Amino acid sequence: MSLRVYGDSISGNCLKVKWVADFLGIPYVWTETSVVNAETRTPEFLTLNPAGQVPMIILEDGRPLAQSNAIIGWMARDSVLVPADPYDHARMMEWLFWEQYSHEPYVAVARFHMHYMGKTREEIGERIYERGAAALKRMDDALQGGGFLVGQAVSLADVALVAYTRVAHEGGFDLSDYPAVTAWVARVEAALGIV
Amino acid sequence: MSLRVYGDSISGNCLKVKWVADFLGIPYVWTETSVVNAETRTPEFLTLNPAGQVPMIILEDGRPLAQSNAIIGWMARDSVLVPADPYDHARMMEWLFWEQYSHEPYVAVARFHMHYMGKTREEIGERIYERGAAALKRMDDALQGGGFLVGQAVSLADVALVAYTRVAHEGGFDLSDYPAVTAWVARVEAALGIV
Repeated sequence: MSLRVYGDSISGNCLKVKWVADFLGIPYVWTETSVVNAETRTPEFLTLNPAGQVPMIILEDGRPLAQSNAIIGWMARDSVLVPADPYDHARMMEWLFWEQYSHEPYVAVARFHMHYMGKTREEIGERIYERGAAALKRMDDALQGGGFLVGQAVSLADVALVAYTRVAHEGGFDLSDYPAVTAWVARVEAALGIV
Repeated sequence: MSLRVYGDSISGNCLKVKWVADFLGIPYVWTETSVVNAETRTPEFLTLNPAGQVPMIILEDGRPLAQSNAIIGWMARDSVLVPADPYDHARMMEWLFWEQYSHEPYVAVARFHMHYMGKTREEIGERIYERGAAALKRMDDALQGGGFLVGQAVSLADVALVAYTRVAHEGGFDLSDYPAVTAWVARVEAALGIV
């Protein structure tokens, strides 16, 4: 049985899984699972992932795995997307945890509310925009030297952070304020073959 | 030069680093760094960690590393706190990401506002309590069979999740509602030597 991926195509967290699988040539069956339609909250889905979140994968042997960054870590283990050097690996993990704590809750949440729920910036609230701008600024500072987030090769850190950064404008952020980030998005999309 | 740890002793995220270092016998020098007093926002500190967060460590060779779960992953690599089996390792990572996204922003944040900022439950807001209760319930369900979060040995998943779960009452949560969690907290504290 092939790897099964439960994902919502509008979710950057879910697209991370698709991009890594496509890049590494890992076969999978995609089951579209809508967050907006609460398909992650059905009794059947909650049996597979009690956290009620996508993405979620079912391995070939039937065992489940959730959390986007844990899933791509599993799929890409021992691949070119994971640095062999232990310190570079640790820095990649630092970016992955920072993404989920200090970037996604602002940049992705603003996009969800504005682009999919039709809310205004005022309804979403300035706190989200302040925190999101701080996250994009931090990335812009880190990317001043060009290259990728960890060293000179694309890694899971870039996969995770490009997911919502590339669509940040859909949440009301202006990426032209962050030229190093804008150039990096294009590099990551080219390196991963994201269209 | 020894490993240097910048941490705030009232922060569970920082105590994770102390516990893992003590358990594994890794020598370190602790530099107390107060979040409340904005010692993570000084120009000197931001040079070391542009995210302005503790914990942050400086390796023996001077290189920095941040994000609590990335730090403990670095310190505990190839140790008994990390499962050797690839799937168990992936599940541990799932818990670590879930902790930072679905547990800490509610259970830790409620504690910070109530215990250290003197806010009431009403001021903190019901959304935080609903989400925090959902996180504790999910853990209670997962721990019905006893043992630890991943398999039958203590791992970084337990380290990360015990940090704020053991002090959840300081944020207004009642752990007696979650008997499997309460028993697990005692097991993890005993296994790690947390006092």
